[in-house]
Amino acid sequence: MKLKKAHRLAAIAKILSDNPNKILTFNYFAERFFSAKSTISSDISSIKAIFDEQKLGRVITIPGAAGGVKYIPTIYKDECITFLNSLCERLSSKERILPGRFLYLIDLIYDPFVVEKIGKIFASIVNYSEADYLVTIETKGIPMAIMTAKIMNLPLLIIRKNTKISEGPSINITYVTGKNNSKIQTMSLPIKSIKKGSKVIILDDFMRGGGTIKGMHDLMKEFSVEVITSIVIIATQEPEIKKIHNYEYLISLEEQDGKNILKPSSKIISQLES
Amino acid sequence: MKLKKAHRLAAIAKILSDNPNKILTFNYFAERFFSAKSTISSDISSIKAIFDEQKLGRVITIPGAAGGVKYIPTIYKDECITFLNSLCERLSSKERILPGRFLYLIDLIYDPFVVEKIGKIFASIVNYSEADYLVTIETKGIPMAIMTAKIMNLPLLIIRKNTKISEGPSINITYVTGKNNSKIQTMSLPIKSIKKGSKVIILDDFMRGGGTIKGMHDLMKEFSVEVITSIVIIATQEPEIKKIHNYEYLISLEEQDGKNILKPSSKIISQLES
Repeated sequence: MKLKKAHRLAAIAKILSDNPNKILTFNYFAERFFSAKSTISSDISSIKAIFDEQKLGRVITIPGAAGGVKYIPTIYKDECITFLNSLCERLSSKERILPGRFLYLIDLIYDPFVVEKIGKIFASIVNYSEADYLVTIETKGIPMAIMTAKIMNLPLLIIRKNTKISEGPSINITYVTGKNNSKIQTMSLPIKSIKKGSKVIILDDFMRGGGTIKGMHDLMKEFSVEVITSIVIIATQEPEIKKIHNYEYLISLEEQDGKNILKPSSKIISQLES
Repeated sequence: MKLKKAHRLAAIAKILSDNPNKILTFNYFAERFFSAKSTISSDISSIKAIFDEQKLGRVITIPGAAGGVKYIPTIYKDECITFLNSLCERLSSKERILPGRFLYLIDLIYDPFVVEKIGKIFASIVNYSEADYLVTIETKGIPMAIMTAKIMNLPLLIIRKNTKISEGPSINITYVTGKNNSKIQTMSLPIKSIKKGSKVIILDDFMRGGGTIKGMHDLMKEFSVEVITSIVIIATQEPEIKKIHNYEYLISLEEQDGKNILKPSSKIISQLES
């Protein structure tokens, strides 16, 4: 059955929304809706205009034989400011401070809508066009990492703290974390999980000294894999000098007189579209 | 600016798609698009019809003061059969069998589109209307669990194998797994992560004897939390008698002459809408 324009637009919007960063051909839609390609082309222009106008994300068309249409999830400046401010407010509560000044985060970073928004911000500020994989380390960053992977249309790798019998041969390294490098830990990744020469983006939930992310960099080196950049949700202001240089964070955490001061990164916000 | 019907439908389809299992009021759309509520009501009817016709999921309207419209992600029978058959085929490869007959799964269960489809199947076969949380145990099931949480609009809890300094006071239990109950392990959940009297659905990637899921049941009992049901991606045929009774699985795994035979659960498929 041939569809009316309004119905085609609704269906196309839904299908694009379900398939971020995938190229869908005009032919695919033309066959699905028994329409001419020129009709689909005009539909896509309408979708693009309405997504722009309603701030629902970017829609781009790719010309040529392998061409089609691609939906790119985007967060806009106002939405991001509102979201990060509310996250900072919730994180500032005194009840979240645990012995050793650890921050209780799991109600937020296991919330699917919070981590999806975080993924959208990451996708809006990082250039992932050359990335082959996202890489995180177990456990707390995994929900955010898989949501980001969905948005960027990339596979995820999860580094384990120990060799696992269900993951086959692995490369393991040791790394140091904690104050004065006091803690030595191991991390492990299956050999066949990643191709030599790949490019990756590293994700984690929290960074203090940067020891864990430095370890992930070192592990990637053993796989001859290039790290494009690293992104974390929260980075502490102290120590100012981290073990890694090229990274982005969404929220900074400063400890003042036993209180936590959390602020959205102004660099991140300045990069976003209004 | 007032929108044309076709543009409103595209925007509504996109917004519903981004907010599974959330009730969005007609007022929200009426204000956003400067339209009358009656116009929005007729738009929603069109969306419902086109989603049904194109098998894009269910759209239901909820009457009354707290009413509105809700999009419920759904997988249909044909799509599910195709997906599970292709998953079984990929899982049957001999190269996936590791020493100790463990199955190499991580390229599939860390793939955001695979785990999202799995989440859609879970949401199509399990009644989650009374659930307050989804619960999984680290690590391999987390990507699938957070995707399911997004689809069901529920928060996720992740049980850890050990007490964590960044998660506050916890309840820990021991549980037994492995052949002849040969392995004793611990699992841990922060006390303040879940409210007494809640109802949960347990998720995991793989079940052999059911020891881990039995452990999760026992842990939930310590929190005075009721388990509605348990769902896993793969369940082995042997041992036939598991440590838990009330569970669902997507794929069964049978070992025959050193080969793995993987089959989609016919019970699951029979429950799906055509």
